[in-house]
Amino acid sequence: MHAELPDLILRKGADRRLRAGHLWVFSNEVDTERSPLSAFSAGDPVVVRGTDGRVLGSAYVEPNALICARLYAPNQMVAPDAGLFSNSLGAALEARQQFFDAPFYRLVYGDSDLLPGLVVDRFGDYLVCQFNNAGIERYQAQVIDALVSQLSPEGVLLRSDSRNRREQGLEDRIETVFGDVPAAVPLEENGVRFEAPVKGGQKTGWFYDHRLNRARLQAFSRGARVLDVYSYIGGWGIQAAAAGADSVICVDSSQAALDAVAGNAALNGVGDQVSCEQGRADAVMQALAAAGEQFDIVVLDPPAFVQRRKDLKKGIAAYRRINELGLRLLRPGGLLVAGSCSMHMPRLELNAALQGAARRSACELRIVEQGGQGPDHPIHPAIPETEYLKAVFARRMN
Amino acid sequence: MHAELPDLILRKGADRRLRAGHLWVFSNEVDTERSPLSAFSAGDPVVVRGTDGRVLGSAYVEPNALICARLYAPNQMVAPDAGLFSNSLGAALEARQQFFDAPFYRLVYGDSDLLPGLVVDRFGDYLVCQFNNAGIERYQAQVIDALVSQLSPEGVLLRSDSRNRREQGLEDRIETVFGDVPAAVPLEENGVRFEAPVKGGQKTGWFYDHRLNRARLQAFSRGARVLDVYSYIGGWGIQAAAAGADSVICVDSSQAALDAVAGNAALNGVGDQVSCEQGRADAVMQALAAAGEQFDIVVLDPPAFVQRRKDLKKGIAAYRRINELGLRLLRPGGLLVAGSCSMHMPRLELNAALQGAARRSACELRIVEQGGQGPDHPIHPAIPETEYLKAVFARRMN
Repeated sequence: MHAELPDLILRKGADRRLRAGHLWVFSNEVDTERSPLSAFSAGDPVVVRGTDGRVLGSAYVEPNALICARLYAPNQMVAPDAGLFSNSLGAALEARQQFFDAPFYRLVYGDSDLLPGLVVDRFGDYLVCQFNNAGIERYQAQVIDALVSQLSPEGVLLRSDSRNRREQGLEDRIETVFGDVPAAVPLEENGVRFEAPVKGGQKTGWFYDHRLNRARLQAFSRGARVLDVYSYIGGWGIQAAAAGADSVICVDSSQAALDAVAGNAALNGVGDQVSCEQGRADAVMQALAAAGEQFDIVVLDPPAFVQRRKDLKKGIAAYRRINELGLRLLRPGGLLVAGSCSMHMPRLELNAALQGAARRSACELRIVEQGGQGPDHPIHPAIPETEYLKAVFARRMN
Repeated sequence: MHAELPDLILRKGADRRLRAGHLWVFSNEVDTERSPLSAFSAGDPVVVRGTDGRVLGSAYVEPNALICARLYAPNQMVAPDAGLFSNSLGAALEARQQFFDAPFYRLVYGDSDLLPGLVVDRFGDYLVCQFNNAGIERYQAQVIDALVSQLSPEGVLLRSDSRNRREQGLEDRIETVFGDVPAAVPLEENGVRFEAPVKGGQKTGWFYDHRLNRARLQAFSRGARVLDVYSYIGGWGIQAAAAGADSVICVDSSQAALDAVAGNAALNGVGDQVSCEQGRADAVMQALAAAGEQFDIVVLDPPAFVQRRKDLKKGIAAYRRINELGLRLLRPGGLLVAGSCSMHMPRLELNAALQGAARRSACELRIVEQGGQGPDHPIHPAIPETEYLKAVFARRMN
């Protein structure tokens, strides 16, 4: 399947990362004398070549971005046409169906599925898509056609309103682009039912990435008193309740999220076990501590505190601080579940932040398990940037 | 509980790591003018102090080792007496009982349990102990007394024959030090039964550390054709068979280990599903590849290829090589389970070795799960050296 695509030629030595399997071309790696970036528009397909002319793969260009080209077909010359999208989506679907019995998962996870810039979450008959840059957005119609033809969904929702897009000056696009999509759609995770507010909720409406970590939480929950901070719509807390927790308090700053917690708790018959506290995480935790509350399990799954590499130091301090607050509410022998979805926060730094929190709390922690993102967020071993999720299960010793 | 212990005084600045929670003192950190190491014998208890006299904790000395003192009681002045060992063992036991319903686990994991140099594995009524240096060995009688009084075992076996000891010039000690211990003892892991050859097998006879990873293997095993390389007595392979694998081939260089595989398979009624190939891992894998064999799951759990930090480069190449062989035997869509128990092999290097293996095999891998050591090998967040185990579950995409 050859295609007549223009060349994007790299400087000497700049091909090494791509030869090792990575998919990104940085703008300073392009031989702009031979292949000026200014000649391209966002989304233009190119063949990326080394100085020697060797084909490294096919990519789409983002002429004004730091990552100025993203490979969708390593080692191949192939146009981004209906056939390509159909193949890539088919491969992504096959990989998900191998690991999941029910149709609730991240169907497309960007680079790892050779569809850079694209995220698709599947909620049974409904699909929610994010096109995270101008390059992939150019193929929106083709991608949606391919999704519709392979999955015959009831509806496809666009949730192209990511932080990533805004940083590139792209406007938000939230709209139903195929069929009908209700405001909230049902899903099942680890045997527990939820309704996810796909139109008004965070990101695509649900975070499938912590699935395995929530399953592990269930294993520890019987009879426990659980605090779920940054609960959003109750992914952690309600699974703990469904697994036999005595009581669960969900804390979130959004009343709409907590209303959804109540609905989701009722959906699983655990309404009596689950209560909610609306407010800022730190303020609510301080109030609970002042009231002398103690929990068997404290889950802290905050939004990314480290959005950019340069924010690492501040972010580490933020993780340390909230986990220190969490430890004040955790009984000796209890379990701290510390999440981080910051790609720029290395696992060892998170562990160090927990150790810092323990030292300041004059207690000792031991890490009993460590979890990461599930099989629907596959990690590309040549692209460390595809790994971002951490969940640390640590026992308070004293 | 004050104790009259001599001082070990650190040089200026050398207290930082201990103040952060680490437990090791290196010989070049000691102020040998004020507290000469030559004044101590292996196992002598000391109070470790900063230059300013501040107490950092109580330790035992190893005057001739690079790590010349190991704290057993941070921030405290306390003698290593019956009370101390009883307390530390009691805390270790309580932490294990919280996570495990049945008495099969690593009961003591060295530094993480504030019993540096000591390992105790529990097999129901039998305990297997390793005293890994001369310092802790001095307290052998007291430790065993404390174990016997807390757990009332049928027997306690000494398996003090670690590589660590030999490097320090300590002789092997394998003997029953309390009651009676049979040559093989029963255990249960993830619902599957085994007999572990505690007297003649590897290390303490069993590797509890991969428990959670073997549970994950079970989740993928139904109907699969599985290859278990470096199988030892079948920990991975037999659990796969018990979880419904169609067929399992266990490969090991030790015929004694493979005899135990057969016994363990029979114990679980999966003798018909499990077969064995005796030989070197690479030779057997090459022969299977030459015969055109293909598997749905290939498990590669080798011994530590990186024993010392300086062996990292060679070790990375060794991991790359065996996983490349493994990929030759894995069907597209199949699952590679790549283990590493090398503390000096960082997780990212293992992932890179897998990527290297994939490139050379002209296939693509995606990491779908990553596992580590279980809750009976707790990680001390201030001591990165307590973390060593990795299991990568990677799907072959094409």
